[in-house]
Amino acid sequence: MRMYDIIRKKRDGGELTDAEIRWFLTEYVAERIPDYQAAALCMAIYFRGMTVEETASLTFAIRDSGERLDFSGINGLRVDKHSTGGVGDKTSLVVAPIVASLGVKVAKMSGRGLGHTGGTVDKLEAIPGFQTDLPIEQFERIVNEVGIAIVGQNATLAPADKLLYALRDVTATVDSLPLIVSSIMGKKLAADDDCIVLDVKTGSGSFMKTLARSRELAEWMVAIGKRAGKRMRALITDMDRPLGYAIGNSLEVVEAIETLQGRGPADLTELCVALASHMLSISDRGNYEVCEAKVKQAIANGDALRTFAEMVRAQGGDPQWILQPERFPKAKFSREVLAETDGYIAAVDTEGYGVASLMLGAGRNTKEDVIHSAAGILLKRKTGDPVKRGEVIAVLYAEEEARLAGASRRLLEATRITKEAPAASPLILDVVD
Amino acid sequence: MRMYDIIRKKRDGGELTDAEIRWFLTEYVAERIPDYQAAALCMAIYFRGMTVEETASLTFAIRDSGERLDFSGINGLRVDKHSTGGVGDKTSLVVAPIVASLGVKVAKMSGRGLGHTGGTVDKLEAIPGFQTDLPIEQFERIVNEVGIAIVGQNATLAPADKLLYALRDVTATVDSLPLIVSSIMGKKLAADDDCIVLDVKTGSGSFMKTLARSRELAEWMVAIGKRAGKRMRALITDMDRPLGYAIGNSLEVVEAIETLQGRGPADLTELCVALASHMLSISDRGNYEVCEAKVKQAIANGDALRTFAEMVRAQGGDPQWILQPERFPKAKFSREVLAETDGYIAAVDTEGYGVASLMLGAGRNTKEDVIHSAAGILLKRKTGDPVKRGEVIAVLYAEEEARLAGASRRLLEATRITKEAPAASPLILDVVD
Repeated sequence: MRMYDIIRKKRDGGELTDAEIRWFLTEYVAERIPDYQAAALCMAIYFRGMTVEETASLTFAIRDSGERLDFSGINGLRVDKHSTGGVGDKTSLVVAPIVASLGVKVAKMSGRGLGHTGGTVDKLEAIPGFQTDLPIEQFERIVNEVGIAIVGQNATLAPADKLLYALRDVTATVDSLPLIVSSIMGKKLAADDDCIVLDVKTGSGSFMKTLARSRELAEWMVAIGKRAGKRMRALITDMDRPLGYAIGNSLEVVEAIETLQGRGPADLTELCVALASHMLSISDRGNYEVCEAKVKQAIANGDALRTFAEMVRAQGGDPQWILQPERFPKAKFSREVLAETDGYIAAVDTEGYGVASLMLGAGRNTKEDVIHSAAGILLKRKTGDPVKRGEVIAVLYAEEEARLAGASRRLLEATRITKEAPAASPLILDVVD
Repeated sequence: MRMYDIIRKKRDGGELTDAEIRWFLTEYVAERIPDYQAAALCMAIYFRGMTVEETASLTFAIRDSGERLDFSGINGLRVDKHSTGGVGDKTSLVVAPIVASLGVKVAKMSGRGLGHTGGTVDKLEAIPGFQTDLPIEQFERIVNEVGIAIVGQNATLAPADKLLYALRDVTATVDSLPLIVSSIMGKKLAADDDCIVLDVKTGSGSFMKTLARSRELAEWMVAIGKRAGKRMRALITDMDRPLGYAIGNSLEVVEAIETLQGRGPADLTELCVALASHMLSISDRGNYEVCEAKVKQAIANGDALRTFAEMVRAQGGDPQWILQPERFPKAKFSREVLAETDGYIAAVDTEGYGVASLMLGAGRNTKEDVIHSAAGILLKRKTGDPVKRGEVIAVLYAEEEARLAGASRRLLEATRITKEAPAASPLILDVVD
């Protein structure tokens, strides 16, 4: 096989065979195919697309490029939830304890944040002592005993995705449906879950800016997960507004705890209940309505919160912080952001909010950046809310005072205030299965 | 400026500015832009194309990437002819002496052959003692005294083209009109000619397989040459048949000499007369008809052949070989290729003929290959000719007997014989100016 022929075939609109795709990926990871040929292929794929078959081949080749996890030591069905990445998205911290408290195992590998979106692992590390790097035996033991454990993503999982993503990132070939699908699902399928619920974000804060594109992404990921033998479901959810009121690591943990206490923000609660109910329902815990009732009960009776606290203890953290979230320290400096005009918050550039949070110290621009756990944003007004000039629309938190001014400007830039109230739009836009 | 933004702009169908294109090329030559980004850009250009303005910018940036020749030491107008590459194309050896004998200077830099097409420099080196690597002063002196000199292409001319072409060659991005135009014209414009006649080949043996694509290529090259202040003309000529009967270095030199003696093959003579007449006519030597008459006279009265012999002497070769071409030695081994059926030669895969010649030792697969000057093919039948089963359609020549069988098979594969005579098609399909 010759890489030249594969590039030309795709350039001319041909369909690559499974053997061709696997050969490319294997040789590329082994550094026997140079970056410039891989870049030319990615750009040809950007223009020509791939069939579902080709995308499945690429996904499975990425999955098989490194270690594949084996969770056969964990008893019972394992379910996972994966979000395509949003701003203020702390749903994992809420839904994982809920479903675990209802008897479905969650053996979760999570990523760190990079750029304007946060990562679950960074959020959990805001809890003192919490270990996100555990030996596999201990990880399995905790999942068996508590029902849930969340650790950082293993570097040996799907190494081809890291290589390919880094290349796409500098060659303007990120924004290609089959490449996005194979990147997400290649990593996801290297873990050993039985059931996967996808939270596909749509709108300004996400990969996919339109509903049609997001639905397509969801459909493809569901189709490919099913080909790999997984039970799949996908929700398409609005990322034209941040989820909840908190953006930033310890701020989001506190909001997740409040949601598990039954007093979380309405949008976050709605999405968490839906995700958890879908996770349970594809894991043989009854139809959607039955599962929804169980989810609400697990929140109401405190089981879900207790499961979260038990996981924190098992992973080396202090469970008292979960039961008394007021223990989380506030950042040294804060600043109120005031509305500059009367009206309604008509739209929010969610990505801009994420960037503001990053500027405050809540995220990383590069892998080496240190995260300030208490840095971030607490929103006081969200999309649809009325505001008056001079009213507080958000409070910013940072460990360094100099970070506040720029972030404040960025947040104001990302907020559009109009005279008329915007039309209300649903949070959950579609379910794909 | 960021390369990422340039790739994305082209990917999205935008028009790159002159500053962006020059920046890219300069940084790429300086190795500050990696191959993988250049490859992604080339593939984006493959799909999105470039405007004439963008193509001009890229052409001039390539031209300016190395040394630019200064032939101000040569007296009078300088004309050049450039072919996009064909099989059996020895026209340079014929037209350059003709126009030089009629008082227009030819200061020619020629390439070596690579792959299935031959190079003028390799052909001239079949003449014992002929030097193709001369100091610039000596080159200019010969042009001033004899009217013509032909040397190998200077490695310092348009180095960006070499880099970019090598990258395109392995990333399936050769076949892009603006990239082809800028590659050919970038090199051509680094020389210092006043007038350029292009011979754009069309058909199976050439870059451009259809007349429409060839005409487009010709129009763009003419437009860009004019922007650089050159007088331009382009002929579009058929490469669905080899030119003349000889393929291979010394075989072609002999056929060129015969053509200068007025007894060359009809197709080769027709094309050489046309090219030379156009070269003269854009060099202020009268209208086309006047120039055509002069050309025919220069052949008939021996002036053109004498000029060729004088150039050979001036460049260190033995002019007696030009006046007595029977001195060129025959190759050690030869083999007749016989028609396998009765009928007419309906079509020839010209590239296949070029490959057969390469297999005989007449060309290079890699830059390191040694050329056998006497190796090659003498055709006995060409497109349109009737043949009978068992008749000789070609004679193959090689210095190693083992080369004959494979080349014979390749030549037969490339020859289609049908019951009906094919429709006659003209050799010169169009003139663009």
